Amino acid sequence: MTDFEKQMAFIMELDKIKKIGRQTYLSDASRKENDAEHSWHLALMAFVFADYANEKIDVLKTMKMVLLHDVIEIDAGDTYAYDTEGNKTKRERELKAADRIFGLLPAEQAAEYRGLWDEFEAMETAEAKFANMLDKVQPLLLNDASGGKSWAEHGVKKSQVMARNARTHEGSEELWAYAKSLIEKNVEAGKLLDE
Amino acid sequence: MTDFEKQMAFIMELDKIKKIGRQTYLSDASRKENDAEHSWHLALMAFVFADYANEKIDVLKTMKMVLLHDVIEIDAGDTYAYDTEGNKTKRERELKAADRIFGLLPAEQAAEYRGLWDEFEAMETAEAKFANMLDKVQPLLLNDASGGKSWAEHGVKKSQVMARNARTHEGSEELWAYAKSLIEKNVEAGKLLDE
Repeated sequence: MTDFEKQMAFIMELDKIKKIGRQTYLSDASRKENDAEHSWHLALMAFVFADYANEKIDVLKTMKMVLLHDVIEIDAGDTYAYDTEGNKTKRERELKAADRIFGLLPAEQAAEYRGLWDEFEAMETAEAKFANMLDKVQPLLLNDASGGKSWAEHGVKKSQVMARNARTHEGSEELWAYAKSLIEKNVEAGKLLDE
Repeated sequence: MTDFEKQMAFIMELDKIKKIGRQTYLSDASRKENDAEHSWHLALMAFVFADYANEKIDVLKTMKMVLLHDVIEIDAGDTYAYDTEGNKTKRERELKAADRIFGLLPAEQAAEYRGLWDEFEAMETAEAKFANMLDKVQPLLLNDASGGKSWAEHGVKKSQVMARNARTHEGSEELWAYAKSLIEKNVEAGKLLDE
């Protein structure tokens, strides 16, 4: 295969992301969103909110990172944040998926994009911290807008949301402060269990 | 409203893009895609295929452009490429939508993003030519993969596809050559009417 054919195979394989469902509802609560829609929303947020990053970020790198961060779910599936059993095998399933999917590309691009995914997962750089913050804050925005529908379906507790967001502030103190205010608002409104 | 509140209003308003349907089917032909999925796919293609641009492009700018190019459809709706009546009023509807939607943002960002949308529409710069090429080639890829389902539904002719793609080569000769080979393949297979 030529490099072009490999790149095209990758782009066509990624079409499958549009069919990977998430647990978060759209803001109008009409249906759940999928990974492609979620990633599109994160990429928008990455440049709209770039100035709120705690540390200066490379916006292009951050956008590539969020646009690619869920492609491993083509093989590994979406594991709901509060699914304890599923999360035990998540890492192994995702690593195998990353090998196969990024491996569709020419070597140089495969290495770059796999590197971005590994960097996102390690959450050590400014870009990875900001991207992970977006990945956590965006569903909070939608959960708030949709009246906590997904939280109600899964009986989610405030303590679980807070534990999951223990490091969200590392990406942006401003965005985390806003997200926290939404969490409190939803606890007060009885949409999120306070236990 | 603070700048942050304006930016958040913009991000939440754009959630509606996930519900704007297009006529193109996903590659597995299971359902039609929406604008958010389409824009996600274009943003991926923008960096994966950046080296094939006829003129060197600013990849970040191109990605912002494709991520934002369809937001005006929140008000103006998606006008099918081969809908003659709808296309008569398209421009006016879209300009009004751009005023309202980009106007949600703080002035500086509103001007930047509106500028990107105007630039996309004018199709004069290297980035706008590449972005427009992606916007035309991506549905061709999906139409081919889905067995020409959308073309068949609308009785689309090769001459219409070629007319619509008269300037696609300006973004990337390589990607246009590939897209053209798919058009020919589908004419031969009887998926696209040759009249």
